Parts: sequence; C-alpha cells; structure tokens
Amino acid sequence: MPVDREQRLWDWERTAQPYLLAASLLFLTSYTVRVLVPDLSPGWQTWWELVTLVTWGFFLVEYLARLAFSNDRRHFLRTRWLDLIVTVLPLLRPLRIVDMHERMQRRRDHPRLVLEARVMAYTAITSLLLGFAASLAVYHDERTAPGANIHTFGDAVWWACSTLTTTGYGDATPVTPRGRVVAVALMFVGVALVGAVVGSFSSWLLRRFRQDGET
Amino acid sequence: MPVDREQRLWDWERTAQPYLLAASLLFLTSYTVRVLVPDLSPGWQTWWELVTLVTWGFFLVEYLARLAFSNDRRHFLRTRWLDLIVTVLPLLRPLRIVDMHERMQRRRDHPRLVLEARVMAYTAITSLLLGFAASLAVYHDERTAPGANIHTFGDAVWWACSTLTTTGYGDATPVTPRGRVVAVALMFVGVALVGAVVGSFSSWLLRRFRQDGET
Amino acid sequence: MPVDREQRLWDWERTAQPYLLAASLLFLTSYTVRVLVPDLSPGWQTWWELVTLVTWGFFLVEYLARLAFSNDRRHFLRTRWLDLIVTVLPLLRPLRIVDMHERMQRRRDHPRLVLEARVMAYTAITSLLLGFAASLAVYHDERTAPGANIHTFGDAVWWACSTLTTTGYGDATPVTPRGRVVAVALMFVGVALVGAVVGSFSSWLLRRFRQDGET
Amino acid sequence: MPVDREQRLWDWERTAQPYLLAASLLFLTSYTVRVLVPDLSPGWQTWWELVTLVTWGFFLVEYLARLAFSNDRRHFLRTRWLDLIVTVLPLLRPLRIVDMHERMQRRRDHPRLVLEARVMAYTAITSLLLGFAASLAVYHDERTAPGANIHTFGDAVWWACSTLTTTGYGDATPVTPRGRVVAVALMFVGVALVGAVVGSFSSWLLRRFRQDGET
Repeated sequence: MPVDREQRLWDWERTAQPYLLAASLLFLTSYTVRVLVPDLSPGWQTWWELVTLVTWGFFLVEYLARLAFSNDRRHFLRTRWLDLIVTVLPLLRPLRIVDMHERMQRRRDHPRLVLEARVMAYTAITSLLLGFAASLAVYHDERTAPGANIHTFGDAVWWACSTLTTTGYGDATPVTPRGRVVAVALMFVGVALVGAVVGSFSSWLLRRFRQDGET
Repeated sequence: MPVDREQRLWDWERTAQPYLLAASLLFLTSYTVRVLVPDLSPGWQTWWELVTLVTWGFFLVEYLARLAFSNDRRHFLRTRWLDLIVTVLPLLRPLRIVDMHERMQRRRDHPRLVLEARVMAYTAITSLLLGFAASLAVYHDERTAPGANIHTFGDAVWWACSTLTTTGYGDATPVTPRGRVVAVALMFVGVALVGAVVGSFSSWLLRRFRQDGET
Repeated sequence: MPVDREQRLWDWERTAQPYLLAASLLFLTSYTVRVLVPDLSPGWQTWWELVTLVTWGFFLVEYLARLAFSNDRRHFLRTRWLDLIVTVLPLLRPLRIVDMHERMQRRRDHPRLVLEARVMAYTAITSLLLGFAASLAVYHDERTAPGANIHTFGDAVWWACSTLTTTGYGDATPVTPRGRVVAVALMFVGVALVGAVVGSFSSWLLRRFRQDGET
Repeated sequence: MPVDREQRLWDWERTAQPYLLAASLLFLTSYTVRVLVPDLSPGWQTWWELVTLVTWGFFLVEYLARLAFSNDRRHFLRTRWLDLIVTVLPLLRPLRIVDMHERMQRRRDHPRLVLEARVMAYTAITSLLLGFAASLAVYHDERTAPGANIHTFGDAVWWACSTLTTTGYGDATPVTPRGRVVAVALMFVGVALVGAVVGSFSSWLLRRFRQDGET
C-alpha cells in the first residue's frame, strides 16, 4: 500500500535524523580542521580525510537507499530535491536540517513557535551555518591565491558578514573563480536573508493590526 | 468587429511566440559569439553580423505589422509598450517572453503554479538573462577601455552578480559611459529583484497565516 | 469660520501650485547652470544668481504669507512641516509637488491610478529629482576638493545612482563634509526607495491573491 | 501573590525609568567625552572614568535587585533578556528605552500613534543612537590602528551611515578585530532597519487599500 510505504519512509526519516545530524557535524568538523589547521601531522591528515569521505559516503548511501525503497521515485525526486543538493554539496546540509524540522513542526497540531519566530530562527541558523561554510570554502581557496586580499580566516568571516547583509564593502573580496562562485551563492543567500527579515516583519506588523482591530 | 480583431491579434501573438523565441535566441547567440570570440575569421564575422541584423529586422517587421493591423493603435501602443522597448533593445527581449507567458497563464482558468512561485520563476529567469546580457554588453565596452578593471568575461559576470544583489563590492566596476548606463539599468533591476523576492516571501507568509487561521 | 478659512487656504494652494512649480523649475535651472557652467560671463553669472535669489525669496514669502493667514498656526506648522523643509532647502522642492499631487488626488473620489501605481510614479519622480539635485550638490562641492574621485558631472550621476540603489560600489564617493552630508541623506532616500518598491510589490501581490480568491 | 508582585515590579520599572534614562545619558556622555577628547587633564580623565564606572555599577545593581525580588526568576530572565544585554553592554541601552516605551504604550488603551508611526519612530531613534555608539566604539579602536582608514570621528560617522543603509562604499572600513565585530553588529542592525522601513511601508499601503475598500 502506498500510504503505508510513505509512512515507513517518513518513520525512517525521523529515526535517521539524529544520525544524519551527527554525521553532518562530523563532516563540518573534519572540513573545518582540514582548512583551519593546514600543517597537520600526516596521520591526523589521513584521519580527517577519512572522516570526510566516510560521512560523505554515508550521506550518499542513505539518499540512494531512500530513493530505492520509495514506491514513487519521481515523486521522491521532486519533493526531496533539496536532499539531492545537500548530498552532493554536504556543506549545505544545514538547509536540510531546517527543512526537516519545519516538516516535523507542520505535522504536529500546535507548533511551539509562531510562523514568524520560526522563520526568523531558521533564517538565523541558516545564515550562521552557510556563512561559516562559505568563509571556510573561500579561505581555503583564497589564502594561497596571488593578489588575494583574504589572508586570514578572520578576513573570510568579515567578508562573509559584509556579503550576507548585502553591504559589500569590497575591502575583502575573493579573486579565484571557485571563491567567486561561492561568493555569488552567498550574495543570493543574503538577498533571501533580507527577504526573510523584511517579510517576517511586515507580516508581524499586519497581524498585529488585525488583532488590534478585532479586540 | 473589434473583439474579433483583438482575438486575431491574440491568436497571432500565440502562434508567433515560438518563432520570436527562436529569433531572440539566435540574436543572443550571435551577439554572444561576436563579443566573446573577437578574433573570428572574416567569413564568420560577416555571418554573425548578418544573423544579428536579420533577427533584429525580423523583430522590427513583426512589431510594425502588429501595429499596422491592430484596430486601435493607441491602445496597442499603451498596452504593448514593453514590445517597443524590446524591439529597440533586443537584448531585453527576455522580458517579453516572461510577459507573454504571464498573459497566457492569466487567460487559462487554472495556472499550473501559484502566483508567488510564478513571480519567483520569472524573477529568476529575468535576472539570469538580463545579468547575462549586461555582462556581455559591459565586457564588450570595457575590455579595451583605458583604466578599466573588467578584463575578462568572468570579471563581467562577477560584477553583474554583485550589482544584481545590490551588494556592490566595487572591485570591478565599469568606467566607460556606455558601460555605466548598462550598470545603472542593472542596479535598478537589482532593486526590483530584491523587491520581488521580499514581496513574494511576505505574501507567502501572510497567506499561510490566513490558511492556518481558517482550518 | 475655521472651515471656511481652511477651504480658502486650500483654494489658494491649488491656485498657487503652477506658479510654485514654475518657480522651482527656474530655481533648479539656475542652480544647474551655475554648477555645470562655471565659466559664465559676469553678466550671466549675476543674472542666474539673481534668478536663484528671487525664486528662493518667492518661496519664502509664499510660505510666510500662508502661515500668517492660516487661522490655526500650530496645525499649519504640524501638517505642513514638509513645506518648511522645502522652503529652506529648495532643491528638495520636488517632494512638495509629489505631496501636493497626492493630496489633490485623495480629495477626488476616484483617483485615476491605483495606489501602488501612484506610489511607484511618485517614487520614480522623487528618486529622479533628488538624485539629480544630489548629483549637482555633490559635484559642486567635490570638483575642486583635494583627493576627490568625483571629477565630472557624469561621475556624480554615477555615484548618485549607485547610492540610491544602496549598491555602493565605492569607486566614486564624496570626501568633503558637505558632500558627505548630501550623500547620507541620499542613502536614506535610497532605503526609502527600496522600501517603496518592495512595499508596492508585496501589496500588489497580496491584492491579486485576494481578487483571485473572490472570483 | 504573584500578580501583586508582578504589579510591583511593573510599578518599580515605571518609577525607575527616568533615573535609568538619566544614568544612560551620563554613561553615553562620559564615554563620548573619553573617546572624543583624548587629551583630557588627569583630573577630568579620572572624573569621567568614575562616571562611567558608577553608572555601569548602577545598571548592574538595578538589574540584580529586580532579579532578586522577582517571584519567578526564570520568567524574568526569559522576558527581560534585553535587560541583561544592555546591562553588560550599556552602549546598547537605547534599545531598552524603546522597548520600555513600547510596553508602556501597549498597556494604555489608546496609544497616541498608530503602530507604523511608532515603528518608524523607534527605528529612527534606535538607528541614531546605535549608529552614534558604533561610531564612537569604532573611532576609539581604529584611530591608532596601523593601516586604518578611519582617522577622524567624521570618518566614523560616515562609515556608520554607509553601513546602516547597507550601502557599504568601502572607502572607510574598520581593520581591527574589535572594530569589525562592532561593524558586523551594525550591518545586521542595518538589515533590520531596512526591514522596519519596508515592512511599515507595505503594511501602511495594505491598510490604506482596505480602508478604501470599506468606504
């Protein structure tokens, strides 16, 4: 029965969530260590590379298993397209956690937070994690590039903040092609961040007006 | 009968759409090739210039024909002002396709996507195409300008992204008058892009609240 | 009778509007000529300075006359605070025209344009005129300042556009205190411009939803 | 009785507000003097340092006293988290005044201003005070830093305005870690400022539509 299988997929996703969360934290840690501590001893280097590979493999296997066992693969691919992206680019996995949490909340009858508070919380977490991931990725590419003006991880974080808020000082900007691709992605995340803040605010204002009007 | 003629104009526009789309892709291709491959052999150079001219001529003829056969020319000029702009500046033709698609969707009873998803899709396509056209135009003007800091097409794309998101790093900016006119246009497109993202988001939030309140 | 006097003030404002509009165009022209053509012959120089002074005097007299004849001066000062600002800083007078037009429209029963179209039109006119005035003022102050990077009027317009859209490239920025005061004012106008575009857009989206829901 | 104690806390907060306001103005003055007049005579130096310490001590004692006397400390910590922040960072105290004023307004039946006007007024005051505090803090850190481009207090104010509006010219940017932390905070305040302006505007537009529809 399809409904049954959908339910089992759903149960599986709920059960697997903590393990996937642990795996993505491990992945993030291994990537962070490898970028921020470049002069590791060869043993540790190998160890952290292994962690990166194993966690990535785990994501891949988990995604393919779910795809294989789903009774309607097209529907799975269409509704879980975010899963495919975060499987290929595990640094974006934070997005998946937010999405999963949101879907769980929607299933309950009474979510603990109103919609705007949830939107703001998700926006804050997403910005923080994507900003951190982008800082790491850009620092990784830029630190040895000729003519770069991002020399320390602090510079990279500074650049990420100025990009996320669409301020764009321009005193620290990536110069390598890969760094610029990350930067363009972060700029659009920044536009979305502004959109979420503004949208929540105007929605909250309008709802308060309606409440005032009703009493 | 006016209604009849309006209907025929409408039918004609629907029939002509795929040909116009093909012609604008040809125009864009010829412009792209001429800008990105400056050392073409004279034969190819002439060929692509011919393609540019013929497609432009086609747009012009099509617009004038529609104007001539419309039974209320003032109404035609007023409701199809976008057509005039994209006929003079064919690089802006993407806007026309989006507009045509939107009018077709509105005619149907049940558009396939909700309004916000359509707005986001049109915004994404418009940004992509206008950003690409602006990158081409700016690269064309700046690459040989003295004191320019946009030397490669990659620089131009990088500049276009930072302009569209209103980030404005300033590490790559046009210095020629024509390049700056394109840049100013793109900045206002960027403001509109932010507006579309933010507006869709706050509209979506408010509708979800209303749905939650109704159930 | 107070209502009668209020009505007479209102009639006067409607009658005076075209003359004030002509005077502000004259003022703008004289300021423009004096800034953009610095090597005028002494005769023309005196002439345009005279035009500036006379129009400014006209604004001042008109404002004071209305204040003197109003039956409730506090109410006048509170509801016409914009008039005071544009009398002291006549370059901001465009704002007054927009405000006057809006008040006239509101008095009629059926304004010719829907609210969002009016907001967009006012926003466009205000941005254009304030951007032009700011370009003039900044060019006036910066062109002879040491270490300035705004050398031509074109640079000033380029700077004004990049400021109004909150892009802020930073390749042309004022360095003199007066120029920076103008720039700060223009930045906040830019935030308001973004606000007007975004607000109109989300309001338009929500209204279309409501209309779709009603039919 | 809990309600009674809550009422007494409330009364106390209302009574203490003018003293806290005076103390925060004293704190701001002492900080301003110490930053802007670095070559004070030792006597005045000691005096202003004393003022800083005493006012800070006053804030701390007031907060701890309220915490000690509250009947539900968890609830106190949760609903007054802003108080904790402004006690640790007294330069942010302006936020508390705005918050207190808002809570007082909400208690009354008829606030004197509509919600949007209040939001705009709070936004303006918050931006002004936070922008001023950030200018002071950044000027304090940057003026002696090697390679800095913020040399005068005017530069710091200029930088703060360009950051608050998310324009981000980049001709004056902090280079020290502490200055950059302040800058990042101000960028997010800038995003919130844009959000408040845009949200108020779209809310005002929508309400006007509804009013027009009802009459």
